[in-house]
Amino acid sequence: MSLAHNLFYVPPEKITSKEIVIDGEAFHHLKNVLRKKTGATVVISDGAGSVFTTEIISVTRSHMTTQIVDKNIVAHRRNLRCALAFVPIKGARNDYILEKGTELGLNCFFPFISERSVVQRIRHSRLQRFERVAISAMLQSQQYFLPAIQPLATSAAVADIFPQYDRVFVAHPDGHRAVDRSAGSVLLVIGPEGGFDEHEVSLFTDRGARLLSLGVHRLRSETAAIVGVTKILTAYNEL
Amino acid sequence: MSLAHNLFYVPPEKITSKEIVIDGEAFHHLKNVLRKKTGATVVISDGAGSVFTTEIISVTRSHMTTQIVDKNIVAHRRNLRCALAFVPIKGARNDYILEKGTELGLNCFFPFISERSVVQRIRHSRLQRFERVAISAMLQSQQYFLPAIQPLATSAAVADIFPQYDRVFVAHPDGHRAVDRSAGSVLLVIGPEGGFDEHEVSLFTDRGARLLSLGVHRLRSETAAIVGVTKILTAYNEL
Repeated sequence: MSLAHNLFYVPPEKITSKEIVIDGEAFHHLKNVLRKKTGATVVISDGAGSVFTTEIISVTRSHMTTQIVDKNIVAHRRNLRCALAFVPIKGARNDYILEKGTELGLNCFFPFISERSVVQRIRHSRLQRFERVAISAMLQSQQYFLPAIQPLATSAAVADIFPQYDRVFVAHPDGHRAVDRSAGSVLLVIGPEGGFDEHEVSLFTDRGARLLSLGVHRLRSETAAIVGVTKILTAYNEL
Repeated sequence: MSLAHNLFYVPPEKITSKEIVIDGEAFHHLKNVLRKKTGATVVISDGAGSVFTTEIISVTRSHMTTQIVDKNIVAHRRNLRCALAFVPIKGARNDYILEKGTELGLNCFFPFISERSVVQRIRHSRLQRFERVAISAMLQSQQYFLPAIQPLATSAAVADIFPQYDRVFVAHPDGHRAVDRSAGSVLLVIGPEGGFDEHEVSLFTDRGARLLSLGVHRLRSETAAIVGVTKILTAYNEL
């Protein structure tokens, strides 16, 4: 649970047909920072397209309960379902991928280990951090859909996901510059800092992925992620 | 002077026809980290398209002198001359604009104060930091052109720059989605977190700027900067 601009996130499983219980960080912010009391209005997103206008009916030391006054179903702003598979890098630059990808309305993130990965494992706390970053970016950009963050996979497991998307692009310097536009869903695969090795590129192209160039400039992984997504969304008239 | 991947930056004014004197951070890295001694080769960019292969001829406590063995003139990788005017925001998010903009090959940055700017001044140390970030990004992305970083200006002063560019785009939610492509040089103007006020928008459009939409999602300033540049470069077939 996180918050920004008076929109709060509560996961769907904590929402009943009548009431929403708010605890954790959102509770702390509402109670101690915004000093909201019984009777105050709280707007809540479930990260799945529902927006609830609620009224606080009780406040305890650990949580508050709100009553649902109104519920709206919001459509996703992207016509294109767009997901990103990326190789986690060291440090805070991953957060950037999660934050900017969420701002741009991606549906799903697939972190995965590549042959040339520097990072070989992701701690549970890191995945939780990814989720906090995504929640914060969702609320900051006033969206009502929280992208899914999948557990860490292998290159082979990422290739197994390809059939779920109409089109898969793998960022690669030898790729085409044009983005073909005949798809309702797209997966973009971004490699590690040193690039994919040939074996992995073959694995991906054998499974139907197309290589997409992101220009002649050498980009950092996290730059390639946002530039690639922007290039695809631009080609699909989604930006 | 900064460094990455064994390419080093020395500003043009420190380069003579025969020798290059390296001091500061680059000197420290070469001497203490890479332990380069007399006779070793050092590759240097002047940030203006020249690449020098040099050989160390002397090392003192404060600097080293290299002899120029070979000089190459490199063409800019962008056909489009593209610059960014942006409103500095609080904290480290500015660095992101400088870093990603440099990676993407922008020629010039114009930081400026807008009506709704949170930040009203930029310390000299901050501008120096901007330059360090740009140098580092230039070397990291293996480019040989360092973008210029102009001193902090006002909105009115930014409008005075417009005639230097064939086309000026101002990121705005009411703008067109299509990027017209009849230009050899483009300036993109990105507003503060709260957006430009109407007075500023009029100031810009009266001077010939076109409003450009970056989609229905609310983007942070630094996201808008990179998404806007990527959208323009994509439209110009530069990515």
